[in-house]
Amino acid sequence: MNKNKIFNDPVYGFVSIHYEILYDLIQHPYFQRLRRITQLGMTHLTYPGAVHTRFHHALGALHLMNLSLEVLRQKGAEITNEEAEAASIAILLHDIGHGPFSHALEGRLIGVPHESISARLLDLLNDQFAGRLSMGIAIFKNNYPKKFLHQLISGQLDLDRMDYLNRDSFYTGVMEGKIGYDRIIKMLRVENGQLVVEAKGIASIEKFLVARKIMYWQVYLHKTVLAAEIMLISAIDRAKLLFSGGDLDALTQPLATLFSHQWSNPGSQYDILNAFVNLDDVDIMILLKDALHSKDYILRTLAEGLINRQLFKVQLSSIPYDTGRVTQIIRQLAASLDLDEAVSKSLVFTGEEQVEIYNPQRDQIRIFQKDGRTLDLSQMEEFDYFRQSNTKYYLCHPALE
Amino acid sequence: MNKNKIFNDPVYGFVSIHYEILYDLIQHPYFQRLRRITQLGMTHLTYPGAVHTRFHHALGALHLMNLSLEVLRQKGAEITNEEAEAASIAILLHDIGHGPFSHALEGRLIGVPHESISARLLDLLNDQFAGRLSMGIAIFKNNYPKKFLHQLISGQLDLDRMDYLNRDSFYTGVMEGKIGYDRIIKMLRVENGQLVVEAKGIASIEKFLVARKIMYWQVYLHKTVLAAEIMLISAIDRAKLLFSGGDLDALTQPLATLFSHQWSNPGSQYDILNAFVNLDDVDIMILLKDALHSKDYILRTLAEGLINRQLFKVQLSSIPYDTGRVTQIIRQLAASLDLDEAVSKSLVFTGEEQVEIYNPQRDQIRIFQKDGRTLDLSQMEEFDYFRQSNTKYYLCHPALE
Amino acid sequence: MNKNKIFNDPVYGFVSIHYEILYDLIQHPYFQRLRRITQLGMTHLTYPGAVHTRFHHALGALHLMNLSLEVLRQKGAEITNEEAEAASIAILLHDIGHGPFSHALEGRLIGVPHESISARLLDLLNDQFAGRLSMGIAIFKNNYPKKFLHQLISGQLDLDRMDYLNRDSFYTGVMEGKIGYDRIIKMLRVENGQLVVEAKGIASIEKFLVARKIMYWQVYLHKTVLAAEIMLISAIDRAKLLFSGGDLDALTQPLATLFSHQWSNPGSQYDILNAFVNLDDVDIMILLKDALHSKDYILRTLAEGLINRQLFKVQLSSIPYDTGRVTQIIRQLAASLDLDEAVSKSLVFTGEEQVEIYNPQRDQIRIFQKDGRTLDLSQMEEFDYFRQSNTKYYLCHPALE
Amino acid sequence: MNKNKIFNDPVYGFVSIHYEILYDLIQHPYFQRLRRITQLGMTHLTYPGAVHTRFHHALGALHLMNLSLEVLRQKGAEITNEEAEAASIAILLHDIGHGPFSHALEGRLIGVPHESISARLLDLLNDQFAGRLSMGIAIFKNNYPKKFLHQLISGQLDLDRMDYLNRDSFYTGVMEGKIGYDRIIKMLRVENGQLVVEAKGIASIEKFLVARKIMYWQVYLHKTVLAAEIMLISAIDRAKLLFSGGDLDALTQPLATLFSHQWSNPGSQYDILNAFVNLDDVDIMILLKDALHSKDYILRTLAEGLINRQLFKVQLSSIPYDTGRVTQIIRQLAASLDLDEAVSKSLVFTGEEQVEIYNPQRDQIRIFQKDGRTLDLSQMEEFDYFRQSNTKYYLCHPALE
Repeated sequence: MNKNKIFNDPVYGFVSIHYEILYDLIQHPYFQRLRRITQLGMTHLTYPGAVHTRFHHALGALHLMNLSLEVLRQKGAEITNEEAEAASIAILLHDIGHGPFSHALEGRLIGVPHESISARLLDLLNDQFAGRLSMGIAIFKNNYPKKFLHQLISGQLDLDRMDYLNRDSFYTGVMEGKIGYDRIIKMLRVENGQLVVEAKGIASIEKFLVARKIMYWQVYLHKTVLAAEIMLISAIDRAKLLFSGGDLDALTQPLATLFSHQWSNPGSQYDILNAFVNLDDVDIMILLKDALHSKDYILRTLAEGLINRQLFKVQLSSIPYDTGRVTQIIRQLAASLDLDEAVSKSLVFTGEEQVEIYNPQRDQIRIFQKDGRTLDLSQMEEFDYFRQSNTKYYLCHPALE
Repeated sequence: MNKNKIFNDPVYGFVSIHYEILYDLIQHPYFQRLRRITQLGMTHLTYPGAVHTRFHHALGALHLMNLSLEVLRQKGAEITNEEAEAASIAILLHDIGHGPFSHALEGRLIGVPHESISARLLDLLNDQFAGRLSMGIAIFKNNYPKKFLHQLISGQLDLDRMDYLNRDSFYTGVMEGKIGYDRIIKMLRVENGQLVVEAKGIASIEKFLVARKIMYWQVYLHKTVLAAEIMLISAIDRAKLLFSGGDLDALTQPLATLFSHQWSNPGSQYDILNAFVNLDDVDIMILLKDALHSKDYILRTLAEGLINRQLFKVQLSSIPYDTGRVTQIIRQLAASLDLDEAVSKSLVFTGEEQVEIYNPQRDQIRIFQKDGRTLDLSQMEEFDYFRQSNTKYYLCHPALE
Repeated sequence: MNKNKIFNDPVYGFVSIHYEILYDLIQHPYFQRLRRITQLGMTHLTYPGAVHTRFHHALGALHLMNLSLEVLRQKGAEITNEEAEAASIAILLHDIGHGPFSHALEGRLIGVPHESISARLLDLLNDQFAGRLSMGIAIFKNNYPKKFLHQLISGQLDLDRMDYLNRDSFYTGVMEGKIGYDRIIKMLRVENGQLVVEAKGIASIEKFLVARKIMYWQVYLHKTVLAAEIMLISAIDRAKLLFSGGDLDALTQPLATLFSHQWSNPGSQYDILNAFVNLDDVDIMILLKDALHSKDYILRTLAEGLINRQLFKVQLSSIPYDTGRVTQIIRQLAASLDLDEAVSKSLVFTGEEQVEIYNPQRDQIRIFQKDGRTLDLSQMEEFDYFRQSNTKYYLCHPALE
Repeated sequence: MNKNKIFNDPVYGFVSIHYEILYDLIQHPYFQRLRRITQLGMTHLTYPGAVHTRFHHALGALHLMNLSLEVLRQKGAEITNEEAEAASIAILLHDIGHGPFSHALEGRLIGVPHESISARLLDLLNDQFAGRLSMGIAIFKNNYPKKFLHQLISGQLDLDRMDYLNRDSFYTGVMEGKIGYDRIIKMLRVENGQLVVEAKGIASIEKFLVARKIMYWQVYLHKTVLAAEIMLISAIDRAKLLFSGGDLDALTQPLATLFSHQWSNPGSQYDILNAFVNLDDVDIMILLKDALHSKDYILRTLAEGLINRQLFKVQLSSIPYDTGRVTQIIRQLAASLDLDEAVSKSLVFTGEEQVEIYNPQRDQIRIFQKDGRTLDLSQMEEFDYFRQSNTKYYLCHPALE
């Protein structure tokens, strides 16, 4: 069989595929769907280069798995070929349940935690592959005894995060977010069954955390990125509302299904899954393009903003915006655009975003010291800096004249 | 006015916008539409990173214009601010008339040379901008006396080509296609009103031509890229045929308009233009996604191939495939897939692709020598290598079992 | 006159020379001498790539000056051509008084602050250039009214520092030390005669400070780098002692002069300067190579260590090493190598190194905020992290068996 | 034992050392000597960044060996650990017999083919390592049955060449010389015991050959590089002549030995080898610095030219310069500088340089085609371009006023 064994990747040069089952998974329509889901959604309205896909991200994370397994084995960790294949499967499929655009949108479209969809899709795939994904799924769900394999896939220094920071930095052109993934990986090892970083990799970890912090403020929560995200979610909410009231028709089949079914109704789950695996950014884009001609002012305004890049304004604050301020904006907007206040209200949004650069409660980055001890990063004074959680409150609305 | 003066670009770091009118043009929906047109169409099926857009390409070419004008001025070329602005407008808008996916598709969708659409759109924009694009349009159309300004925009070493080689190489990850654009630009100058390259830039030019040659064979005419291109064009042809026979309905408004109007009918031109500026990759993608459920075997096969990446096989030859060979394939295919031969015939494609790396007939690359003479590249023996035109004939069809 | 107007630079691509006097200065033997002085001395024993020279660093800093002046002018700062030339001269010559290897060595060789030598050499050059360096010297010495020009040359975000962090990171291969110089420079502007950074450059500044911190701990004060530095200084001290006792002869003329003259004796200053401009790394290297055959055990040991890379061990501590510990090491060493304790003592070194990443006392990094106010970086809470000064004490001696 | 297992390399990121004997070889003074031999000699007078050393080149070539062995093994080539170690030794030590500055200089200093010295040094090392280098030496000398191992070390696509093109391009900043080493290596495989390149790597090979061609004309035979090389060789010739006549004394011990002994006299060989392993660029540099004060006009002129970068002029021609032209230059020079014609004659040099990009006579690049056949590159029409050998004749002399 003539299989393409190497993918070109601008970020890493090449990504090699080491196991045959990986090709077959890549070829599967569930995985090909990820080609049509951008990694950063509407972020390209702010950073025009950021049009990369979840498909490429998954391949990139697989590449980092190849590198990591090689390093860990060279340092004596016991990893069988079967385990290496399973870990590769787990990282390759870690985003298989991802919906179009961002995680936030997912909540709106399926009304169930993303993890439930993922679990169901992995099981469906495992059936189709005659159970050959079982070990990979165990690693993914952290049910496999060698914990370090799961830690490569999900943790505060996992390969998912490493690839997306790397890739997002690369494609946005925000060079400050670049991380030294190769150096971090070279410093990985397994001690007592846990993934640890050798002490001489500490500078790379510091740079990694700073890069992550920078990516949050420069990209993920950049004001216009946030505005576009809020507008997109609101457009979907509005469309769903109109659809349920019979005031919107031209939807693609998958969207129509998702808008009209409830996951909580077990009888609907099969239909929802079936719609989900056919849903991608294209369905959302066509909804927005159609909405340019919607009779509904609110939906039309949101769609025009997203299609023609007339983004709402976002203000950020470290304390919540009080009701008076919000009401004032709603009134100003109504006056400025000659709107009904009820309509104006539907175009003013508040909410919060929380950033944690390093949260030792969730999972640790373990530093392996020359004296043989392993420390959690948070035990090192100089990393206090990264521990603070940071909440920002936003107020978002159309530009006032 | 709060204008974003700098765009991030992974290829160049930053792109600065020097003139206010450029922002206004970028903000215009005609230009924003280019965000939804990928530079390389279906090439991402072969090179997953190649999802960059014409929007970013246009900004990149503008950046190269900034650099070039600065170099030329430093070397004494007289370029007024008005001319610099006009040249910037011309390069920014050079792709404004581009349709979704490739140039090839354009022919199918509008049935008129791409240049006619471009010219009409530029005129429409010029009206909206109260004639302020006139000098830029003159440069674009090579009606402006300072010929070197047009040569920056269209020629064998123009900034369009320089950006796209650069950008396509970057996003595909085909590093061999990387060109030393900064070095070439540093070697530009104006002599007798013509754009020339100083002799010490000759190595950069050689590398540029080799890179171009490599990009043709590795990317633009890569077998699976070519297969996807052929399949896409054929899918559109098929959809149009079905539509005109009343056998396809669910089309977006712009596509429906383009499928049912003729440019040759002057009364239709307004509608066509209007549809065109609302048409982008999303319209094509939704057509393909819908076609997954088409009753027409041919359209469905093509759509499945493109959506789920089951690409046809391509053979290349330096002589045309004879009818016997083609007929044989059609029969084999019919047998293998249990198809009617008429259907099978509709899935077997032949054609040719021509590659010219350097064609001195069309326009020249002029080398400015130390002795003050200017030579055409083709007068230099060592560049003979690049002059040969190269025609390849293809035969493309679904994989035979 | 046929002048080379462009230098290739692996770090920046090209460095352009904009003023004719700069070529003449570059051609001057005082400046050519910098070709024979490595930027990082013996650091290449740890990082083999770090063999770059002060010559190239000076050109690199000049390149950053070119970029900075262009940005500042674009933002409206008034800078005459004469001032631009003068600022270029000042940055080009900022290291003209640098001796071989590190600053530390300088103290040993000339026994006078490096600044005195620089000032004298600049005056000598100014004489040779008929006073054409006067404005540049005024900028260098901060005697010129437009303070921002001096701030580009000497400050906590100056172009010297920016180039050396950049260049040292590049040549050592310690990628974590890479800074986004182009982004920082794009964010510079002049407000009230002071150099400031626009607020949106804050992430770049943060990354710059982290990079600087990392370079200190990974490179400048890396244990084996520090060992080599201590050994080199000690070798020179030892050689000088032996020379003054008549126990060393084969020295190059410049070294012999410097070893036998005192700057404090005004009659010697002319000879010292004359020797100094002929002194470079080659003189030190030949001393070390000769010392491989020295009869003096101490000098020979140090020289062998440096030539054949048998580096001493370094321990670091945040409190000084107590005398007992040092005495113990001296005795162990004496026993282990069968040495006289007096000899052993001469091979055991203690001392301290201080690192300040950002010291608001010395000079400020000024952040220009959107509201028009200018803040010192140290007024921003999140930068507290970088303000702590950090002293490390070292203990350095030959490896004990 | 505390061994440094990873070297930083700006070109490749990291170089890992996989076998313990490699550390011991790297630590050996014969190998440490390569730290003091620059890869490109005086080329830094033209390209200031080109100060990299043979030490780093050898480590870089070792890195490419690591990569290549991994690829070949993945594709099924049988390579035992012992063979991998031996091949690593062979590539690490391939330049062990290299003298200071260029190969050309070697001829002057030792009067015996470089290979003889190498062979003797390898044997000496093998003795010191108790015969553990024997297999490595066999591979180096092409006496080992698995020919592909030698082909990795010496051939038209060997790892030595791949690293030096890469590294020289990197450090000179001549980006056009950059090669896609990772892509070429990924395409290597072993067929019938021979090293071959898979057909889909053909574009990388083409780019490799063009890069090589460009490096010749832009760097290795750049006019000022050539001038410096000629001047250096002539300075050494002159110094040797003066020394043998008793007119030069201040030489380092190794140089004095080499100037006064003949390899053809077997009794001298031990002394010559002993001097050779202590000889490096420092000895040559100190000779030149001393020669600034020489009484001999010719030596002094050459030394001043090299130390203060007053390089001679070089003209190139595709036919030899006739005697008349040379005599004319000698006379003009004599007149211009007021020299005796005999002296003037000693400062005018003619000679030739030959460039072969690809010589199928010497060794082949074998392309492995999809149909299983292996073709020599020279059988492919499109590579004719690279087959022509190219001879240039030079005329070199001090600038005429």
